[in-house]
Amino acid sequence: MTTGQKRVLSGMQPSGLLHLGNWLGALENWNALQEQYECFFFVADWHALSSNYADTSRIREYVRELLIDWLAAGIDPKRATVFVQSQVPDHAILHLLFSMIIPVSWLERNPTYKEKQEEIKERDLSTYGFLGYPVLQAADILLYKPDFVPVGKDQLPHLELTRELARRFNSLYRPVFPDPQEHLTKFAKVLGTDGRKMSKSYGNAINLSDQEPVVRQKIKTMITDPARVRRHDPGNPDVCPVYDFHKIFSPLPVIEQINQDCRKAAIGCIDCKKLVADRVVERLAPMWEARATLTQHPSRLDEIAEDGRRRATAVSSQTMAEVRDAMKI
Amino acid sequence: MTTGQKRVLSGMQPSGLLHLGNWLGALENWNALQEQYECFFFVADWHALSSNYADTSRIREYVRELLIDWLAAGIDPKRATVFVQSQVPDHAILHLLFSMIIPVSWLERNPTYKEKQEEIKERDLSTYGFLGYPVLQAADILLYKPDFVPVGKDQLPHLELTRELARRFNSLYRPVFPDPQEHLTKFAKVLGTDGRKMSKSYGNAINLSDQEPVVRQKIKTMITDPARVRRHDPGNPDVCPVYDFHKIFSPLPVIEQINQDCRKAAIGCIDCKKLVADRVVERLAPMWEARATLTQHPSRLDEIAEDGRRRATAVSSQTMAEVRDAMKI
Repeated sequence: MTTGQKRVLSGMQPSGLLHLGNWLGALENWNALQEQYECFFFVADWHALSSNYADTSRIREYVRELLIDWLAAGIDPKRATVFVQSQVPDHAILHLLFSMIIPVSWLERNPTYKEKQEEIKERDLSTYGFLGYPVLQAADILLYKPDFVPVGKDQLPHLELTRELARRFNSLYRPVFPDPQEHLTKFAKVLGTDGRKMSKSYGNAINLSDQEPVVRQKIKTMITDPARVRRHDPGNPDVCPVYDFHKIFSPLPVIEQINQDCRKAAIGCIDCKKLVADRVVERLAPMWEARATLTQHPSRLDEIAEDGRRRATAVSSQTMAEVRDAMKI
Repeated sequence: MTTGQKRVLSGMQPSGLLHLGNWLGALENWNALQEQYECFFFVADWHALSSNYADTSRIREYVRELLIDWLAAGIDPKRATVFVQSQVPDHAILHLLFSMIIPVSWLERNPTYKEKQEEIKERDLSTYGFLGYPVLQAADILLYKPDFVPVGKDQLPHLELTRELARRFNSLYRPVFPDPQEHLTKFAKVLGTDGRKMSKSYGNAINLSDQEPVVRQKIKTMITDPARVRRHDPGNPDVCPVYDFHKIFSPLPVIEQINQDCRKAAIGCIDCKKLVADRVVERLAPMWEARATLTQHPSRLDEIAEDGRRRATAVSSQTMAEVRDAMKI
C-alpha cells in the first residue's frame, strides 16, 4: 500500500444514479488518477444525511448503485481503495475531536452554508450537522493524509477550511496532518436533453445505467436548435446540445462534417441524433456488461466494500493513533 | 445483564481528583443507585475536551484517577458497568447522526451555553463542539436507553433537550429511544475550608486521595466563626463551616453537644476541629486502603475498564443496530 506513491482522496454522496455528466466530470478523472496515485474513493453516506436527514429511505440502495456505477465506469478496486464512510467509525471520531477545536465562526462564514440554505427551501437545513459538514469533510480528508484532493473551483473554500483546521490541530498539539493540495479538476460541462446543464434534478439526464433503448429514446427527443423547425431549415450547431454531444463522443472528422452539414441542412436532426446515439451506446456498452455482472453477483460488491473498509481502516487507525498521541487522550 | 432491573446512566468529566463535595454529592448517590438499578457509569473524557481542548496534558492521568476515586468510594464494577467514553466509538457515531437532525437553534437557546461562555473568560469556548455538547450528551445517554438519569436541578434543561431529541428521532424515523426520566439528586452542599462551597477551583477542597496528615492539616486551618477571636469568646455554629462538617460526619449527640458548647465557649475551635477530623479520617480510611491496592495493581484498573468497555459496547451496539435500521442507513 505504501509504495511511495502520492496519495489522493475523493468521495461522492450517494444521491442516486450517476449520469453522463458525473461520469465525464468526476469519474473519468478518478480513472486517470488511479493510474498514477494511491487513491482512496469513498461513498459519503453520512454526508448525505446533512442535507437529507428527513428522507433516508433510499440511502442503502443509493450506496450500492454508486459503487456499481464506479466499478462499471472503470474504478479498479485492486488499485484504488473503494469504501463506504459509515463503515469506518474513525470518520465519526475524528469529526468529534475536530468539533472541539473549530470555532463556530469559521463555519458560519463558509460561503456555501448560507447559499445552500437559500437555494434549498423545501428542506430544513438549519441543523447542527449541516452547519458542521465541513468538519466532517475535514475528518474525511485528513484521516488519510492525502497529498491531493480533486476539487472543482467551487469547492476550494472547503479545502481551505480543511487546511486551516489541520494547521490549527498541528499548532495546538503537534504536527500530525499534512497540507493537502487541491488537484483542480476541469469538469467538462455536459448538457442535458433539454439543453440545460445535465442534472438529476432537472430530469434531463442520461444515466450510466440506462439501457440502450432508453438512451436512444432520450437522445431522439433531445431538443436541438429551436430555430430549425423544418428538415430543410439550416441549423446552428453552436446552440444545439446534440452537437455538444458530438463534440464529446464523436471523432473529430465527424464533428467537423456535422458542423458543416447542419449549417446547410445537408443532414437532418434525426440522422444527426442517430449518429451520436451510436457513439454514446458504444461507450456505455462495456459499463452495461460490467453492471450486469455485478448485479448478478451481489456478494462481489460486499467483498469489494469489505476489502476497502479493511484497507481504509488500516490507514485511518494509524492516523487516529497519532491523533490520540498528539492530544494525549 | 438484562435482569428486568431499571437502568440508570451517569457520567463525570475527568477534571482532577475528587473531593468530599463530589463524594457526598454524587458518588454516595451512585453507591445507593447501584444497589437498586442496573447502572452504567462512564468517564466523559471526550466531553472534557469541549471546554478544555487547549490543555489536554493531564486527561489520561485524570481518567485513571477518576476511576480509582470511584472504585475506592465503593462503586462496584461487578454490579455497575464502569467504562470510559472514548473507548466506545458508538458515542461518536450517534453524536454524528444526532447532529444531522438537531436544529442549531435548540443549542443556541441552551441556557448554560451563553452562561458558561460568560463565566469562563480565560478559555475560548466559541467552538462548534462546545455549542454541540448537549448533542454528545444526548448520545451518551440514549445509547444505553436508561430509565433514569441522576441530575441536579441545574442540569434539567440538558435532560429536557435529550428527551426532545429522542422524540424528534422517534418521530422522523421510528420509535427507538425511551423518554429517560430525571432522578433528582439533592446534592448535599459541602463547604470548603474557607467557608465557600467546596470546589477544586477555589483551592478549598479536601480530596478523597489526601493522606491523613493532609486531611488533618486542612481541617486544622479551616476558618471558623470569624467573630470568635479568642478561646473564651462564645461562637456561632450557624456560620461555622467546621460545624457544617460535624453535621455531615458526626453522630447526632455530638452535633448537639458541639452546638451548645460552642455557643458558651465550653469547647475551643482546636478541639472541635480535632473531633471532626477524627470522624473524617475514619470515613476516608477504607478509601485510602482501596486506593493503595488499586495503585499497586495498575493492570487491575485496565481490566475493569476493559470489562466495562465490553459490557457497554454490548448494549450500545444493540442500540446502534436499531438506529441504523430505523434510519435505513
